[in-house]
Amino acid sequence: MKNFSKESLLQGDASFRRDFVNALSGYKSLNLIGTISKAGVNNLAPFSQVFHIGASPPLVGVLFRPHTVERHTLQNVLDTDEFTLNHVGKSFYEEAHQTAARYEGSEFEAVGLKALNRPECLAPFVKISPLQIACKLISSQTLEVNDTVLVIASIEHVWVAENGLREDGSLDLEKMETVTVSGLDEYYTGQRLGKLSYPKPGKDVEKLL
Amino acid sequence: MKNFSKESLLQGDASFRRDFVNALSGYKSLNLIGTISKAGVNNLAPFSQVFHIGASPPLVGVLFRPHTVERHTLQNVLDTDEFTLNHVGKSFYEEAHQTAARYEGSEFEAVGLKALNRPECLAPFVKISPLQIACKLISSQTLEVNDTVLVIASIEHVWVAENGLREDGSLDLEKMETVTVSGLDEYYTGQRLGKLSYPKPGKDVEKLL
Repeated sequence: MKNFSKESLLQGDASFRRDFVNALSGYKSLNLIGTISKAGVNNLAPFSQVFHIGASPPLVGVLFRPHTVERHTLQNVLDTDEFTLNHVGKSFYEEAHQTAARYEGSEFEAVGLKALNRPECLAPFVKISPLQIACKLISSQTLEVNDTVLVIASIEHVWVAENGLREDGSLDLEKMETVTVSGLDEYYTGQRLGKLSYPKPGKDVEKLL
Repeated sequence: MKNFSKESLLQGDASFRRDFVNALSGYKSLNLIGTISKAGVNNLAPFSQVFHIGASPPLVGVLFRPHTVERHTLQNVLDTDEFTLNHVGKSFYEEAHQTAARYEGSEFEAVGLKALNRPECLAPFVKISPLQIACKLISSQTLEVNDTVLVIASIEHVWVAENGLREDGSLDLEKMETVTVSGLDEYYTGQRLGKLSYPKPGKDVEKLL
């Protein structure tokens, strides 16, 4: 195995370090976050730091970098208290990637993804997305360690493609063709190995699916 | 599409809600966290809430649930300040799942995964894992919103399988056979769609790999 210490990473090439450290946690969730500015301009940007916080009540966390292209999204969330999360499907992952470019106006028109407005939320959804969530801001805090901003939000409404939802509540991400990302720019679809039974000491793991 | 409001989720079946909300963010990273107790007992547990916080310095976040089987891990991290992150490979994802069972002693022996000790870290690594990280606790805080605990740690050392590391610093998770998880119990490997060029307005996205 190849070994790197923190010191060798910090003294080494910045671009190597960025790509390497970004990929260390493994596969990451990929969502397009839709927002609207106070002036009424729609915004869309890809995020890989969206994570589950709790189910009762349904909560989600988003970690925002402080000085990057995603600043518009954070500002809009703080201004309007609302945003949408939209799974990225295999059929539009290149357009999703392209929304990270520094556009002046709305990324929807710029990359050719249709916005969808719903009465339940001020912020726009991605019409083609197989899973769309309306979120409401609960809190935001700046992490002292590096000035990233942790936003915690409540999941207010969910729309999910019929073929992706199983009776037990679990999602079939393979059927929905949901995309996952590694590092900053590498996209993958998933291939199911198995859905496993609840783990108990002395009991063999069973494959349920 | 099928629609759910927060109210309908909260009034509905608890097991449906848990499985559904856990899967909403999409594919999640999957790591085995290795720790050692003050009494010297090794502990190993699967985590899907590990996320990238920053590259300079290299930082990682872990969200711990407050009242679950993973409590041993959190207690050990707080007691010893150290833990390891280990990617889960396709060849041992069932054993990784099984470490979540409520064992009295060490999960390594119980599920048949070999521990690896290294002089750089008190906590044990998973010998077979293609990517192993030694982490040091920086801070922990309880999130008011639902009493989950956010741990922020510094990445001190990384060991990566030679075939998984590219010259530019990016990782080939497909080659390493790293596993990703959806919800609580559904495991997938990744199939690369593409590694894309840096997005700029007016420039077409190129597939680099």
